[in-house]
Amino acid sequence: MTGWVDGTAPLLQERLGALAPLAFVESCLRGVGQVMFMNNPITGLLVLVAAWIHDPWLGFGGTVGVAVSTLVAIVMGFDAGAVRAGLFGFNGVLCGLALATFLAPPWDGVSTVWIVVVSAGSSLAMAGLAALFSIWGVPPFTLAFNISVLLFLVTGLNVARGNLGELVSPASPTVAGPSVSTVLRESADTAGSTDAVAVLNAVFRGIAQLFFVNSILGGVIILVAIAVCSRIAALFAVLGSAVGMLVGMALGADGVAIYNGLWGFNSYDACLAIAGVFYVLTWRSAVLGLACAAYTALLFGAIGAFLGPWGLPAMTLPFCFGVLTFVMLRDAAPRRFTWVPPGEITTPEEHLRRAGEAVRS
Amino acid sequence: MTGWVDGTAPLLQERLGALAPLAFVESCLRGVGQVMFMNNPITGLLVLVAAWIHDPWLGFGGTVGVAVSTLVAIVMGFDAGAVRAGLFGFNGVLCGLALATFLAPPWDGVSTVWIVVVSAGSSLAMAGLAALFSIWGVPPFTLAFNISVLLFLVTGLNVARGNLGELVSPASPTVAGPSVSTVLRESADTAGSTDAVAVLNAVFRGIAQLFFVNSILGGVIILVAIAVCSRIAALFAVLGSAVGMLVGMALGADGVAIYNGLWGFNSYDACLAIAGVFYVLTWRSAVLGLACAAYTALLFGAIGAFLGPWGLPAMTLPFCFGVLTFVMLRDAAPRRFTWVPPGEITTPEEHLRRAGEAVRS
Amino acid sequence: MTGWVDGTAPLLQERLGALAPLAFVESCLRGVGQVMFMNNPITGLLVLVAAWIHDPWLGFGGTVGVAVSTLVAIVMGFDAGAVRAGLFGFNGVLCGLALATFLAPPWDGVSTVWIVVVSAGSSLAMAGLAALFSIWGVPPFTLAFNISVLLFLVTGLNVARGNLGELVSPASPTVAGPSVSTVLRESADTAGSTDAVAVLNAVFRGIAQLFFVNSILGGVIILVAIAVCSRIAALFAVLGSAVGMLVGMALGADGVAIYNGLWGFNSYDACLAIAGVFYVLTWRSAVLGLACAAYTALLFGAIGAFLGPWGLPAMTLPFCFGVLTFVMLRDAAPRRFTWVPPGEITTPEEHLRRAGEAVRS
Repeated sequence: MTGWVDGTAPLLQERLGALAPLAFVESCLRGVGQVMFMNNPITGLLVLVAAWIHDPWLGFGGTVGVAVSTLVAIVMGFDAGAVRAGLFGFNGVLCGLALATFLAPPWDGVSTVWIVVVSAGSSLAMAGLAALFSIWGVPPFTLAFNISVLLFLVTGLNVARGNLGELVSPASPTVAGPSVSTVLRESADTAGSTDAVAVLNAVFRGIAQLFFVNSILGGVIILVAIAVCSRIAALFAVLGSAVGMLVGMALGADGVAIYNGLWGFNSYDACLAIAGVFYVLTWRSAVLGLACAAYTALLFGAIGAFLGPWGLPAMTLPFCFGVLTFVMLRDAAPRRFTWVPPGEITTPEEHLRRAGEAVRS
Repeated sequence: MTGWVDGTAPLLQERLGALAPLAFVESCLRGVGQVMFMNNPITGLLVLVAAWIHDPWLGFGGTVGVAVSTLVAIVMGFDAGAVRAGLFGFNGVLCGLALATFLAPPWDGVSTVWIVVVSAGSSLAMAGLAALFSIWGVPPFTLAFNISVLLFLVTGLNVARGNLGELVSPASPTVAGPSVSTVLRESADTAGSTDAVAVLNAVFRGIAQLFFVNSILGGVIILVAIAVCSRIAALFAVLGSAVGMLVGMALGADGVAIYNGLWGFNSYDACLAIAGVFYVLTWRSAVLGLACAAYTALLFGAIGAFLGPWGLPAMTLPFCFGVLTFVMLRDAAPRRFTWVPPGEITTPEEHLRRAGEAVRS
Repeated sequence: MTGWVDGTAPLLQERLGALAPLAFVESCLRGVGQVMFMNNPITGLLVLVAAWIHDPWLGFGGTVGVAVSTLVAIVMGFDAGAVRAGLFGFNGVLCGLALATFLAPPWDGVSTVWIVVVSAGSSLAMAGLAALFSIWGVPPFTLAFNISVLLFLVTGLNVARGNLGELVSPASPTVAGPSVSTVLRESADTAGSTDAVAVLNAVFRGIAQLFFVNSILGGVIILVAIAVCSRIAALFAVLGSAVGMLVGMALGADGVAIYNGLWGFNSYDACLAIAGVFYVLTWRSAVLGLACAAYTALLFGAIGAFLGPWGLPAMTLPFCFGVLTFVMLRDAAPRRFTWVPPGEITTPEEHLRRAGEAVRS
């Protein structure tokens, strides 16, 4: 199946490229995978399956989001290679999934319009941010998604057709720490789980929550989706989600949030980005990836608390700032870590192979 | 009148340049026009007239603001050509107008001191921001004004001599959406207007509100002021203000805000900037300008809601971020849009003429 | 004592460089001095002495912070020359001092762990920010400290082991101005001091407060510490602190905050940076330094008010933004001010000497 399924599936891309509609679908699916730097349509397909299984409205939102944002990029004449690699789809799919989660009621016409509008806007924001960030030679990660959705949700507070659901609940900050219950449990009114079950939930729901899916099954499907493209990335996804959970526990965060994977999803994406994608995997970059997972978890706590007055969630802002900090370390410690320029990124396995060849020759 | 009144009035500049005091006055007037990218002293004069007619204290604030900020730039030895083109005046006039609007009481010594201080500071901020933004080859737009005034107003919350008026009213965010009344009307306790009157008010007050003038008459004078320099810009000012209004209505925003032009002023400035000033006018850049107007209106809703806890207004931050996003698209879609480098900007008409010559030759 | 004690003490560095443990201690002490751009270990030693005298827990926090952040930089393989000059210590010492001030109780294991974690994180943030800022040719000042500590404190609001002390007290913004008591006094319930005593307190506590030390004695020791390295810097420290106080009084700020030096510490550090460190001292750059002190004081008022909803202090963010604005003026007014590139910074006295030589040759 080499070249057809695993890695970046270049043979599949070549074959489907001949037919415009199929190429469009493949670009969208690669866009879904690119949320986790996996340029592979099978990865994206499995992720969408996980979303549709969890909640068809969620799956619908994500599908609309990725299709609209990819379409806008094509209409605007943005770089065809980038579109084909899914780089104008990953913000859109997250916009669709996020709005399907935070707007209410589901299957609503107005909500669907907002998904279309915000996903479309995210493609323009992505293009603008990519130009801003290009002077540093780094991509803007999922900033376009975060900015687009957070701005829409905050607008929703003050307008009649914002359709905000109950998950957006503004609250003035207080020193709530002493009253926080740290027992891992599914919801505020359930008893705590045994340790093993709770940890399993935290880690796998963490993997699923990146796509607003809240279930162990979703986490397993998404982990398989990652593994289709890269086994190394799948390993660091699990490790990164676990590190995020541990940081949440060390800080004494709300046990409900930890159990439901909220401390894991930013950390694991940051972890696999550093350990293998942006730096060639070595024991040093592996440790750096785990450190980045911990750093990102601290940012998750901070950004969530900062957005409290407006009742907004941290989305993947912690991932953006965490991974940005750690990719910029390439300049500070150039000899310890082998940087993979964004234009040359494929899979962690391929990066290792190339680095091996460079050493041999 | 070619060269004396319309376009950038180069003959007027040449004649007045011989006399330092007249050159200073002309630099200030061009500064007022530059808020809308109109490098023309007649434009600026008419805008100031509109402000003085609406409220002499407002006109006084704006006049002091532009004079102080321009003077500071001269004393600091900033680039003489830029000063002459009004590039160190447009932030200052907005600072003066904004503080005259948000501070109370009017004709107050302390308030006047703050206008002088903040306008002076805006020139330093402008120079610093211009240096920061120069690496991207774009100007910092009115960011210096926004930063300077918002920082002063937020300071005013906690100090005895802040002179904050009633327009600054902090309020904790709530999901206010369901209780928002979307009927277009002049104030909360008046009945709604008929559609045509309401739309007329929204569009023309929108044009006037960029300079904190809230009247149809003001909007008409300022539209004429724009048309003196560029008929294309005037057209897109009306269209952009209308688009802003429509976005506000589509979101279900407070009808009082829409009626009084608050959804229009950011959008129209962004619209004319994209459709003709920063990109040569084509049907494509015209559509892009209207899209930018809509995008900017969404940002207006978001930034206003974000600043709610401190009771601060969105000012022209939506314009800054909206137009920045769309000018950065020059890198993402270089062949669809013809970029006009900031140093070569004159008027949309002149850009069209130059582009035509380039095609012929 | 030339070369051993004053200036950047190069002979001391050379001698201690031979022994790794001593070189590490010296790097840390230089790091403490670098908070005020004083690359001198005696300066750092005296500052730490002031902290330990004021409160041993404060001194302990700062000492741990600088040691940890310097150690992380060495382990990460960051530029050895920069580490040796203390550039990876100044954020860490401030992190340690800040957390020792804002966390409670003192001498607590968990608080100590947070000091270690946040100081370590500040070194990574510093490296990342330095890479971001390098395209403008300016350093990121103490942004890494501010970001690291503020993010930790805001996280602390929502977690059980945040250990937030009483100084962090969230409060919804109000127009508090009219009720602010501007009488200079030590605490809200003490009578006001006579003018001379109050001014002396405001200015010298201002100098001490940069290191979270609140006493006249601390201010005197730290002023001596500065003077050991540079008499020019010491002069502008006093002037800058006084300017900050005056701006606070002009705005009508809370008299307790002014008396305790809170309006001075950002201003004096910004003042000495502009007047002698980043620009060669001339009467023009001296005036610019005082203007920067005033500008920074305005930023202090703004940032403190902005952070009010979360109960967070302004830290040295006003210094960062104030000094950044004024260093960027080098591009806007290149002939009025002689810029000292960051890589060539030593002491104001040395910069003067070099500029004199350049004129003579």
